[in-house]
Amino acid sequence: MNASAPLKHHLEQLRLELQHELNQLHLPAHPQRLYEPIRYFLDLGGKRLRPVLSLLAAELFGAPRSLAMGPALAVELFHNFTLLHDDIMDEAPLRRGKPTVHEKYNRDVAILSGDALMVLAYEQLLKAPANAVPSLLAVMNKVALEVCEGQQYDMDFQSMDEVTTPEYMRMIKLKTSVLLGAALQMGAIVASASEADQARVYEFGVLTGLAFQVQDDLLDVFGDPAKFGKKPGGDILANKNTFLRVKAMEVADEAGVLALQSLYAAPNSEAKVQEITHFFRQWGIRELAEAEMKLLLEQAFEQLNALEGVDEHARQVLRAFAAYLIAREE
Amino acid sequence: MNASAPLKHHLEQLRLELQHELNQLHLPAHPQRLYEPIRYFLDLGGKRLRPVLSLLAAELFGAPRSLAMGPALAVELFHNFTLLHDDIMDEAPLRRGKPTVHEKYNRDVAILSGDALMVLAYEQLLKAPANAVPSLLAVMNKVALEVCEGQQYDMDFQSMDEVTTPEYMRMIKLKTSVLLGAALQMGAIVASASEADQARVYEFGVLTGLAFQVQDDLLDVFGDPAKFGKKPGGDILANKNTFLRVKAMEVADEAGVLALQSLYAAPNSEAKVQEITHFFRQWGIRELAEAEMKLLLEQAFEQLNALEGVDEHARQVLRAFAAYLIAREE
Repeated sequence: MNASAPLKHHLEQLRLELQHELNQLHLPAHPQRLYEPIRYFLDLGGKRLRPVLSLLAAELFGAPRSLAMGPALAVELFHNFTLLHDDIMDEAPLRRGKPTVHEKYNRDVAILSGDALMVLAYEQLLKAPANAVPSLLAVMNKVALEVCEGQQYDMDFQSMDEVTTPEYMRMIKLKTSVLLGAALQMGAIVASASEADQARVYEFGVLTGLAFQVQDDLLDVFGDPAKFGKKPGGDILANKNTFLRVKAMEVADEAGVLALQSLYAAPNSEAKVQEITHFFRQWGIRELAEAEMKLLLEQAFEQLNALEGVDEHARQVLRAFAAYLIAREE
Repeated sequence: MNASAPLKHHLEQLRLELQHELNQLHLPAHPQRLYEPIRYFLDLGGKRLRPVLSLLAAELFGAPRSLAMGPALAVELFHNFTLLHDDIMDEAPLRRGKPTVHEKYNRDVAILSGDALMVLAYEQLLKAPANAVPSLLAVMNKVALEVCEGQQYDMDFQSMDEVTTPEYMRMIKLKTSVLLGAALQMGAIVASASEADQARVYEFGVLTGLAFQVQDDLLDVFGDPAKFGKKPGGDILANKNTFLRVKAMEVADEAGVLALQSLYAAPNSEAKVQEITHFFRQWGIRELAEAEMKLLLEQAFEQLNALEGVDEHARQVLRAFAAYLIAREE
């Protein structure tokens, strides 16, 4: 599926509006080591996919998208807060090719400016109409806790021998997908959508997010290096749990499980990537992942189709947006 | 000034109510390493002074204190979040005689459970009547950012040669006093106090908090060890900036400044504490600090006296509470 030119243009327009708002975001000059790292981190960029969803949801329910700008920014700032703190926990040296905050400044600066960034996210909610604020705050609190839970499960996985597919799906749902759902729901709230419709766009977001993550895992191994822009197998070399790995452990026989375990335990090499990829192919993991993705996307579209009284054009835009996300090869 | 027996009984009653609510606070069982550290930290105890202020403020403006329980818990949970993250930055091994979260678990657990604790604080705001939520959220966001700013200034001081008294007062105002003000203001908000009265209780809280902190600095050096329960001079041995230290640097002549600087730079010893204390006495720092405290408390009481249409008995309770805080010797 390819996104049409007008859709791409519309999405680019929304992204530019959001970027403009982020550039305009007022941050005090002092204390410098609290606010400067926040500006630095926001200026590293990003696709701004989540806040675009909030704006699209407002349009979907016939409201001007400007009404959803506060919640959209709240979602984007919250997302950046999680990245900033995750970078400390992952001891990541780089983010988008630039030094992470804890590398550029230090650990304490990264903790504290992250904390302040979470507060700045909550601050954005107050740009919405006052009567929407309690509902927005409830959605924000719920998703914020869930994202923390997802990060904790992800860290727990590092010391676990085996992770099951349902455990993996719950982790990525909490760590990444629910924020897409919440972004959409917040846009629906400011547009006074019914609770049933709010629940449907939320589920649409969560399911699309899950499909997106499975796609991400697939691309890492099977993506076209020319289009993907990096060497395949990064997740394998990082010994990361991915949909492919947990599914392989599930379908393999006893000998296969042992072989895969010893391969992951082996030192990194080109051969390691090739042999694990070979197992994935042999056991049909690629096809299983593609089937899972397709199923998730179908379920997402069902939620979209079930929406009542929405703008038909906007519904098409959201469907195309989801297809566009999944069709990406980079 | 001594707090009367009925006042003490009332405050103890409020503290017990708050403790009961904190004990009842529902925390999910999983992921265990996210929520268990929060329960552990909350169970370390504390005087619960800040949330008591929220309940007192509601009573002051004639509302049932139960109306302020949500904001009160929000303030207490937020306060605990700041302690949890500050402990990481200070590399503190103990909190209330027990291992800190980053010691008992690890750094990442402390960062993430702290993040979740901040979210839990925001969640409590939704227990208040919906029409009060936007105002409560605005107060919470403002104070949360200010507390982050105060912590950053405090860390900045560690690499500064000299801190002026105004810089020190701004730091302690942000780091500790504004939260007392916000606790009171939130109680006033749920009780539908006028904006003018909200501002007055807020200022009363900030000024009382400042007086409390100056008192804290005084007690560390001049407190009666028998009543204070620890050896004097802990702040001196930690090379901490305190009101006494910054004031001494301000009033000393050039030779005095150099003498004090070299004393603070010297290795820790009993003599170091005694000699610095001697300078404080010689330069009348104790009296300056006591005068500052008295002035702050007078200004606080002026704010209290200016309140319109409040319950007179409750006003007396708040005045007595402030006096009680300052009269403490432990």
